[in-house]
Amino acid sequence: MTGHGMTGALMAIDVPAALAEHAATVEQAIDTLLPLPDGHERRLVKAMRYATLGGGKRLRGFLVMEVSALFSVARASAARVAASVEMMHAYSLAHDDLPSMDDDDLRRGQPSTHRRFDEATAILAGDALQARAFELLADVNTHSDPLARCELVAALGLASGSRGMAGGQMIDMATEGQALTHDEVTRLQALKTGRLIQYSAEAGAILGRAAGPLRAHIAAYGRDLGAAFQIADDVLDAVGTTEGIGKTAGKDKAAGKATVVALLGVERARAQAVMLASQAARHLTAFDGRADRLRALADYVVSRGH
Amino acid sequence: MTGHGMTGALMAIDVPAALAEHAATVEQAIDTLLPLPDGHERRLVKAMRYATLGGGKRLRGFLVMEVSALFSVARASAARVAASVEMMHAYSLAHDDLPSMDDDDLRRGQPSTHRRFDEATAILAGDALQARAFELLADVNTHSDPLARCELVAALGLASGSRGMAGGQMIDMATEGQALTHDEVTRLQALKTGRLIQYSAEAGAILGRAAGPLRAHIAAYGRDLGAAFQIADDVLDAVGTTEGIGKTAGKDKAAGKATVVALLGVERARAQAVMLASQAARHLTAFDGRADRLRALADYVVSRGH
Repeated sequence: MTGHGMTGALMAIDVPAALAEHAATVEQAIDTLLPLPDGHERRLVKAMRYATLGGGKRLRGFLVMEVSALFSVARASAARVAASVEMMHAYSLAHDDLPSMDDDDLRRGQPSTHRRFDEATAILAGDALQARAFELLADVNTHSDPLARCELVAALGLASGSRGMAGGQMIDMATEGQALTHDEVTRLQALKTGRLIQYSAEAGAILGRAAGPLRAHIAAYGRDLGAAFQIADDVLDAVGTTEGIGKTAGKDKAAGKATVVALLGVERARAQAVMLASQAARHLTAFDGRADRLRALADYVVSRGH
Repeated sequence: MTGHGMTGALMAIDVPAALAEHAATVEQAIDTLLPLPDGHERRLVKAMRYATLGGGKRLRGFLVMEVSALFSVARASAARVAASVEMMHAYSLAHDDLPSMDDDDLRRGQPSTHRRFDEATAILAGDALQARAFELLADVNTHSDPLARCELVAALGLASGSRGMAGGQMIDMATEGQALTHDEVTRLQALKTGRLIQYSAEAGAILGRAAGPLRAHIAAYGRDLGAAFQIADDVLDAVGTTEGIGKTAGKDKAAGKATVVALLGVERARAQAVMLASQAARHLTAFDGRADRLRALADYVVSRGH
């Protein structure tokens, strides 16, 4: 599917290499921003680092870095925000994997945080990662304008709380085994994963003090990209192997999870992901060739694993 | 013990009434700031409200309100910050009570959040309360100056993360059953409960854009008050009844928890709390009679239950 409707310039972009490049920057930032202390709290920070530094594509960090570049934001600022978003994402994974939640022993091919440490430590590590993310965003080193910092904090709070990520996870758990409509599944996923992906793109526009209409385009891109990504992820869960995707495959179906794949089947779900990815890219028409990596990413997220 | 060394003006202050007055304001603010949504995430917000609106002295909210009044901060601003701090405190209690942590079925005489709902919901409610607290602090309605809002966010992140509340809880769990020195116990408690109490006082000074030295006095007051409060709380745990304190009594000793009471015995621990409370009050000499309720509070926290 890769390349459908893509220009030569886009096809020439090596998205995995671009992801890897930013991932290295973001890993480095996280490493610096989570120094190991002495004392008995060292175990906590070890768990925070384990949960956050375990690799991964760093899709969210990539979005912060690329959108920031579009608005000529200093790389160091963007990297701090990218690190903060990845800390939030990591905290949510550490908590979602807990026995009382999704009860998953594997994450990125490694023992999940509560398996490597213990439940209490995994809960506390998630809690402390969240606190650290907000602390970093509000710090003067993140942006010289305190209003930009406040916007970063307020928008992250909204994207990750009851009206965002945590709300989505609650819906997911509360409706397990129930038949949801297509609209309900779409809303569940928009909250659970969409809002934080959208935030990641918007954060670059906030850092760049982008004008309202440009910020709205970026937000719409992030929203549709997030939706496309989630459906593609559910397709991978349905057709992939545990080894290939680094986490337990086939879990959604086994758990009776409401996904677009469960509702529409693999082929129609895949087609919808492709449609959403094209729609995401179309929100970028106001931007020049500097947005090509974001355009190529939209294609990439729906063609992984094929 | 009440009244030792206190002037007539201080003795005339009815601290429980003052606490109740601010508690009503803070409860009202929390109620407004956590509206119940429709949809399946309603359960999450119900749990957030259950964890936060269950009563309690609202010591942290009181500190925000009283220190804010000292610096002529608008009551509505102070109430928002007080609500945010109480949300953070409530999230920490909901998580601390979990089976994998302190495994406590009772909180303020009621089933703890995971007993009233379930573990997953209690974890998510805590997560979402934390996100909401930071979101509120960064919001323009909290303070007109974005720099003040950033300071509130950054200081709360520091007070509640690995170098504060979460770090303290980690130390507490990691050292259970171990013999700690007096210095180690003091540091554990400074992180676990002291930092957030100190923050509560400081937040009022941040809201009031207090000059550096005045803010430092308030911070020192909060630090010593927090230390006094924690020791007094441990004394209550050792000598109180489950009915009287609204949570399971005698748990510290049963769990082999390191407390000042365990190290020094009840009487010497109580004497140390009194000493710290006097020290807290002495940090307020730069302030006039408007700080009398804060002075009276210092006496009150070490004379509860006698």
